[in-house]
Amino acid sequence: MMWHQLKKMGGVLLLLWGIGISGLQAGEDLFADRRADWLQKAEQAKPMLRERKVEPVGLVTAVRDPQAFQGWRMVPETDVSGFYGALMKERMSQGQETILDFGEHLTGYVTFTLHATKDVDGPLRLKLTFGEVPGELKIPFETYSGGLSRAWLQDEVVTLTALPATVTIPRRLAFRYVKIELLGCSYYYDFYFTDIHCTATTSAPETAPALDERVDPRISRIYEVGLATLRECMQTVYEDGPKRDRRLWIGDLYLESIANAVSFRNHELTKRCLYLLAALADERGIVRATVLEEPEPHPLRETYTMDYCLLYGVTLWEYLQATGDRETAVDLWPVVQRQIEMACTYLDAEGVYDVEKQPKYWLVFDWKEGYDRAASIQGLMTFAVEQAYALAQCLGVENEVSDWPALIRRMKKASRERYYDQRAGWVVSGPDRQVSYLSQAWMVLSGTLTPREGARALEQVFTREGTIYPGSPYAWHYVIEALIRCGLEDRARETLLSYWGEMVDKGADTFWEVYDPQNDLRSPYGFAPMNSYCHAWSCTPVYFINRYPAIFQK
Amino acid sequence: MMWHQLKKMGGVLLLLWGIGISGLQAGEDLFADRRADWLQKAEQAKPMLRERKVEPVGLVTAVRDPQAFQGWRMVPETDVSGFYGALMKERMSQGQETILDFGEHLTGYVTFTLHATKDVDGPLRLKLTFGEVPGELKIPFETYSGGLSRAWLQDEVVTLTALPATVTIPRRLAFRYVKIELLGCSYYYDFYFTDIHCTATTSAPETAPALDERVDPRISRIYEVGLATLRECMQTVYEDGPKRDRRLWIGDLYLESIANAVSFRNHELTKRCLYLLAALADERGIVRATVLEEPEPHPLRETYTMDYCLLYGVTLWEYLQATGDRETAVDLWPVVQRQIEMACTYLDAEGVYDVEKQPKYWLVFDWKEGYDRAASIQGLMTFAVEQAYALAQCLGVENEVSDWPALIRRMKKASRERYYDQRAGWVVSGPDRQVSYLSQAWMVLSGTLTPREGARALEQVFTREGTIYPGSPYAWHYVIEALIRCGLEDRARETLLSYWGEMVDKGADTFWEVYDPQNDLRSPYGFAPMNSYCHAWSCTPVYFINRYPAIFQK
Repeated sequence: MMWHQLKKMGGVLLLLWGIGISGLQAGEDLFADRRADWLQKAEQAKPMLRERKVEPVGLVTAVRDPQAFQGWRMVPETDVSGFYGALMKERMSQGQETILDFGEHLTGYVTFTLHATKDVDGPLRLKLTFGEVPGELKIPFETYSGGLSRAWLQDEVVTLTALPATVTIPRRLAFRYVKIELLGCSYYYDFYFTDIHCTATTSAPETAPALDERVDPRISRIYEVGLATLRECMQTVYEDGPKRDRRLWIGDLYLESIANAVSFRNHELTKRCLYLLAALADERGIVRATVLEEPEPHPLRETYTMDYCLLYGVTLWEYLQATGDRETAVDLWPVVQRQIEMACTYLDAEGVYDVEKQPKYWLVFDWKEGYDRAASIQGLMTFAVEQAYALAQCLGVENEVSDWPALIRRMKKASRERYYDQRAGWVVSGPDRQVSYLSQAWMVLSGTLTPREGARALEQVFTREGTIYPGSPYAWHYVIEALIRCGLEDRARETLLSYWGEMVDKGADTFWEVYDPQNDLRSPYGFAPMNSYCHAWSCTPVYFINRYPAIFQK
Repeated sequence: MMWHQLKKMGGVLLLLWGIGISGLQAGEDLFADRRADWLQKAEQAKPMLRERKVEPVGLVTAVRDPQAFQGWRMVPETDVSGFYGALMKERMSQGQETILDFGEHLTGYVTFTLHATKDVDGPLRLKLTFGEVPGELKIPFETYSGGLSRAWLQDEVVTLTALPATVTIPRRLAFRYVKIELLGCSYYYDFYFTDIHCTATTSAPETAPALDERVDPRISRIYEVGLATLRECMQTVYEDGPKRDRRLWIGDLYLESIANAVSFRNHELTKRCLYLLAALADERGIVRATVLEEPEPHPLRETYTMDYCLLYGVTLWEYLQATGDRETAVDLWPVVQRQIEMACTYLDAEGVYDVEKQPKYWLVFDWKEGYDRAASIQGLMTFAVEQAYALAQCLGVENEVSDWPALIRRMKKASRERYYDQRAGWVVSGPDRQVSYLSQAWMVLSGTLTPREGARALEQVFTREGTIYPGSPYAWHYVIEALIRCGLEDRARETLLSYWGEMVDKGADTFWEVYDPQNDLRSPYGFAPMNSYCHAWSCTPVYFINRYPAIFQK
């Protein structure tokens, strides 16, 4: 098993991997005979979306408040009955900003009915701006100049040539607040709304396990917000965020599926996603980091991340344990195997993942500048091989991968030699021997460190000045899991309460893609409104609270 | 018959007119028992629209040119095959403006298909600006601040979350040129068009009478542009302009229907419009100046113009002469009668229309600042009563209006005393004894001046410095008709050639709502792009050229 070549074809970096076992030749398609079946199974498992009609609670006013999240606080102005029928042109000509508050985060289609006070002698033109958080309605979109599409920002322009009219905005939206601005109306008539609602969709069922009333109310609230986050992201796939990117990513899938398994239990959705990723793997059998459903299911062809490839198998193993669905696990086992075979080609002679080897894979792990991923990918890969081997054992196919136990041992040994500073008692990574939370976490989760070593390492990073701390809830998830693994249960609980609890304290209806307690405006895209404020990978308090009741429900 | 009262009700100036003949009481509805039937007849005559799929000719570049209309000239860049497949993001990032030229004025729905060069990792956001003339794409819309709705200006924003996608802009558009601007795209992919077309609609048949090949080519070209203007405005009603106001106005109907009667001959459309206006008359039986079809047929309730009320009967009389459809004429005769009865309440003791009488009616006649309408409405009313009496005679109901011949005589006598300056040989109007083209024209058309007097008056205004000249093709129509009536056939032909011919020379594909040879940017709305550049009331070269072949086809 090795890399043969890199080949520039039509401007696209195409990776051709010769696989000894299957005798795959360049241009051949490893899963050619499986794709159609896998895609069909994915489509069969596609959920019907549950719809819910939600009206706004009322009008609110955005008020500058340095204490509030991103500096903006919403103050109730009137309930929705004070909005319906109110003359909008008159209101707006007096400079009154018009923001509706739906009271909760919604994902769906917005419909409204407009009327005129007189006959309409010219068209009406409105701009509607949808925001998940107050700041999105106050930071001017036109200042954005980043690389992600500005079209993610949710402002829509509507032109109506006759009234009354009932309008549904074609684009699916993710929001709590709607700002309405008047772009055009004749001097002659005024206009008003009699209805505005969101047809909110989800593939999550109506209920999830309730917590005991005696649970710490801070935990209860975090749990509710986590459930809302997961519910909003559960559509016809597990989306990463219903505002952005609105699609299935493996890393998000993993955390969503384990949270779902202990809450909503829509296992069909997990199955659909696993099959989709398999059906849309490349010709070498490597799964893409992300796939899209429209206009028809297809991958983002050039996007691979090694950590996500490896988490595919972990996700399948968790799915099997949650459901007992051996048929699916057997069916998709070759995909798991293939990812690990591919990852192995990145190991050096000692069994260390070579982060410099070309072509370099993207390693997600976190949104955090300056964080060195070498130790983390080493730990994650070890963890993934272990999990995949457990899956193989459960399926009775461990003979196919009989070299994996030795591989795991070799990797752990190499990890300790390369990354573990026994004297300091922590894991270091990269040429600068960087100490980060995540390096410790992954060396714990992989079992490279003993629980005692892990506890020592983690306790140190929590108190040491200058440690690279996680930038995203996604990364914090693995830290908490590692804390639990080392028996640092109070620290796990405190971390969840402080990190997720702070988001709740700052008004989160759903948990955010990126949250840096030291900077509310931090965004990996250089622009706060581009952040997703309902992001799947942040939902895992749902997992922790249900999975470890003794820790979190005490 | 007299005005009883004015009454403010709910902020709306409601005119209650007690009618002796029918014994109508305040709040009663004169045509209550006829409306439903009239509306049904209007709907039965609603035409099926003929559709035509039109693709652009190619890309053009807008070039500054002080000689060109409004200072902008379009220069061909490439044909449409050079546009399809061209990478738009690359093009636009190089600052290249992208304007498509459809080669002719179109009214309809625009559809296009977009593709991406790679998988779409974020939505695409485009702005499409539609222009009837080049200037509309170059004068920034955001500078507009007038009373008409800014939403008439045709720029539409489209957000697409998946590609390939075929999009139809919901709003019906009127345009020749489309400017495409990129508002949002990710750094990752580029995009291109493979199709863009307009599904153009009209209720005009495919062909109209062709002119002899030996006709002056300037006349031929004016005729073609006139036909295009009429065709574009013929939709499910005669619209005034397919860009703005997109609805039936009586003044436009009159000129469109007489042009249609000698060209496309879709008489059902005329019938529909006459019935619509009747069905939507107010409770006193007074027709509104304009009606709308969406969401269901209704009038612009507060908009009355006296000249338009009076032209309703003229239109019906022309319709009867063109079609012989006595049934419709008999059915709608009471409406004609009612308008004239109402107008009579505005006559003073001498038989002069009192322009100061309250409530003042809007008198359209022209878009022209400072033009005094007193003589014009006097002439138009006389003309309208004469035409209506001819209609009555044809229908054998002249006994119902046996006082009209005396009324006409009384009005003409009063007109000559009040408005005709026998010594100067022209008609004057208003306290400043203003001399305008239109005052002469209407006193000629009403037969108040003899042809010899009319010829003298008209010849003088054509040469006299400072005469108030018409601002619109609508007004020029009546001037030309008056010239013909007085035997000034060469002057009529010259006027048509110079006024409409100049529009053609300046690149008109269809004739304009307002054209002032001295100021290309003139607009009654203070903003050139708000003008309609395909306006029904400008189509009458079609009428003149067919109606008076000896003058125009020689």
